[in-house]
Amino acid sequence: MKKSTPNIITLTTDFGLSDAYVASMKGVILSINPGVTLVDITHNIPPQDVRAAAFLLHTSHTFFPDGAIHLAVVDPGVGTSRRPIALVTPHATFVAPDNGILSYMVAGATRPAVSPTGLDFKLRETKLPAGITAFHLNNLDFWRHPVSHTFHGRDIFAPVAAHLSLGVPLDKIGEPIPSLFIFTVPHPQSQPDGSVMGHIQHIDSFGNLISDIKVEDIMLGKTEKKTEIEIEVRGQKITGICRLYAEGKGFVAIIGSSGYLEIALKNGNASKKLESKVGDSFTLTHGQIK
Amino acid sequence: MKKSTPNIITLTTDFGLSDAYVASMKGVILSINPGVTLVDITHNIPPQDVRAAAFLLHTSHTFFPDGAIHLAVVDPGVGTSRRPIALVTPHATFVAPDNGILSYMVAGATRPAVSPTGLDFKLRETKLPAGITAFHLNNLDFWRHPVSHTFHGRDIFAPVAAHLSLGVPLDKIGEPIPSLFIFTVPHPQSQPDGSVMGHIQHIDSFGNLISDIKVEDIMLGKTEKKTEIEIEVRGQKITGICRLYAEGKGFVAIIGSSGYLEIALKNGNASKKLESKVGDSFTLTHGQIK
Amino acid sequence: MKKSTPNIITLTTDFGLSDAYVASMKGVILSINPGVTLVDITHNIPPQDVRAAAFLLHTSHTFFPDGAIHLAVVDPGVGTSRRPIALVTPHATFVAPDNGILSYMVAGATRPAVSPTGLDFKLRETKLPAGITAFHLNNLDFWRHPVSHTFHGRDIFAPVAAHLSLGVPLDKIGEPIPSLFIFTVPHPQSQPDGSVMGHIQHIDSFGNLISDIKVEDIMLGKTEKKTEIEIEVRGQKITGICRLYAEGKGFVAIIGSSGYLEIALKNGNASKKLESKVGDSFTLTHGQIK
Repeated sequence: MKKSTPNIITLTTDFGLSDAYVASMKGVILSINPGVTLVDITHNIPPQDVRAAAFLLHTSHTFFPDGAIHLAVVDPGVGTSRRPIALVTPHATFVAPDNGILSYMVAGATRPAVSPTGLDFKLRETKLPAGITAFHLNNLDFWRHPVSHTFHGRDIFAPVAAHLSLGVPLDKIGEPIPSLFIFTVPHPQSQPDGSVMGHIQHIDSFGNLISDIKVEDIMLGKTEKKTEIEIEVRGQKITGICRLYAEGKGFVAIIGSSGYLEIALKNGNASKKLESKVGDSFTLTHGQIK
Repeated sequence: MKKSTPNIITLTTDFGLSDAYVASMKGVILSINPGVTLVDITHNIPPQDVRAAAFLLHTSHTFFPDGAIHLAVVDPGVGTSRRPIALVTPHATFVAPDNGILSYMVAGATRPAVSPTGLDFKLRETKLPAGITAFHLNNLDFWRHPVSHTFHGRDIFAPVAAHLSLGVPLDKIGEPIPSLFIFTVPHPQSQPDGSVMGHIQHIDSFGNLISDIKVEDIMLGKTEKKTEIEIEVRGQKITGICRLYAEGKGFVAIIGSSGYLEIALKNGNASKKLESKVGDSFTLTHGQIK
Repeated sequence: MKKSTPNIITLTTDFGLSDAYVASMKGVILSINPGVTLVDITHNIPPQDVRAAAFLLHTSHTFFPDGAIHLAVVDPGVGTSRRPIALVTPHATFVAPDNGILSYMVAGATRPAVSPTGLDFKLRETKLPAGITAFHLNNLDFWRHPVSHTFHGRDIFAPVAAHLSLGVPLDKIGEPIPSLFIFTVPHPQSQPDGSVMGHIQHIDSFGNLISDIKVEDIMLGKTEKKTEIEIEVRGQKITGICRLYAEGKGFVAIIGSSGYLEIALKNGNASKKLESKVGDSFTLTHGQIK
């Protein structure tokens, strides 16, 4: 059976909404595929913050239909030798610079056995796991010409995504490559004293502190006795995990909508109150677990 | 004749545009109905400001085609017992939490005979007027699973709106309910001295002060002699109502685009200048009306 | 051969994204043409900054498919005698107030032979060049009624754009007019000492200073010896033009994605650092050109 052509392109950039850069990309896409559905993930990524873009793409792409094309352009090295790439998973296609912005897509399958100490966003060339393929987008026929040195989003990534949405096969648009440059995605570590050391990996616009600790990290080999869990972030201790924001008072620990443990401040901004930043540690102790 | 399936979903939230929460909702909707047209009303509602969302929904939904579906998620009580609901008027369908966000839709038909003193946003269970029906969205088959405790926008409201846009009848998705929880929408009161006491019910991003006083409240039983009307807001007196922003100087009173009397500051921000807030009184005296 | 009906409408306004004004316009458009594709250029034009809107429309509209309709509503004179107009070029149709917002579209063909001194945004009635036609949108049948005095975007421009997107010919919607009110678009001047005096014509949200100097202005009659070019802005001297943002250090001069010479600050905001504003001069000297 013929696979139907995907017809959704999402856009994630650090271009903001006050200039016409995003609109120019959309114009290029619609010039190639007038029938495509365009969806903004966000354009308010802090300038050049590849890591933040990687996180938001990670937590949102799974909600789109299979075959959606995700265009992500946070590209401090635009015009340098970093490659324009496409990454294909069983569920989606990503079009982006090879600068770590797709780290979560690759790392999901290649999480290192030994945890690093603290957060480390250094790029490492990493072989792709089974089931994931990548392409170097080097066929100039699918670029817009002349190619600006400073705006590959408009001249390379947008037209390539548009051609993909029309069903052009990736092996016509680029060449298969076996590895990408990715950073190690944040994840928690067990400590000798039995506690779990995680990190803030994102702070959302409500000021909620989203850690890298998942439900399975909390429960791992422990009896489920939620009220005894104690979390410490920036000197603030929080006891127990609430089911709802509305349930607690003051600081609240909760399993957020992406499955990560997060800290919120009831009727306030936890991040401002704690003066916290991405990378701050998140310590989890289980009290008197039997 | 078969009624055609509506195919527009609008979105109103307090999620902002810097995270991927809105995009996740759109992904869920497009996964169910890839052909739907999505339109953002706004996502910049101040966090948890149900009243502001209610006002903006009120002033914009009438401009959409009949049968449009309006999804509104400002939901401080997410995960508590407040019900997910749908409200059907002759012109539109609303999908939202039962927390007052649809007050204007219901109150249009149920405006109390006796005016309350000042603004009061307390929720009161209110029987629906004729011509309006409501449903408790309690059929889990139309939800996304697993349902996050903290993000019903994505897991309940978005999928329900998407199914509605495909033409699924509401009585399959929920159960009819006779009443909703709404607040009394702001409206002006006649004073013993013949003046009209209104209130600021919204401040827009230009700093314009939008009152709850409509043309019919001004003219009621009076001869039309516009230049003699005097308005007082935060100690500032404004005489006469201008037809255009460009007409006046300094503070200008004008009938705004939603039909409410509003105060603007020529080449400035009236709200900042007057240090005003929603709920401040707006007094209207008619001078020497004959 | 019948020309196909264009089906894209872009929107450029100063309404911001915190109110429902943009959504109301979209609702009106979709009520008339439910199948149209709507694309936001930007809604974050500074309040009433017609010039900024003109620039962003200028640099983005060329990336849209031929026949796209561009709706631009920055309209400080709403309700006054300024005319609602449409402008038709070989590639696009613009719908806007006749207040200079389309200056770049007309001025591209009518650039004055003698350069003015400094920037001058005074409106002058200007005869249209060959190949461009304009219409006064005065047929009330294509407006939304009642027409608000303060929101022609919703009641005149949006419905007209929607009818145009359905293929209604412009001579039914308005009457041909031979001239429009435009300002002289910024452009550089040769100085007696051989230098080129340009201006900052836009500052983007990264703080990049975009001049009115194009590649052809730099090279004009000079041997190409890029490294010797010297630029001075607000007392800051920059030598040479880089190919990429990533290439330089500190302040970097670069040919930006719209073809204009611009100044960026590596890992910083050039505009804030130099306390610059639109209109500041941009002096280009060619050093020892042979």
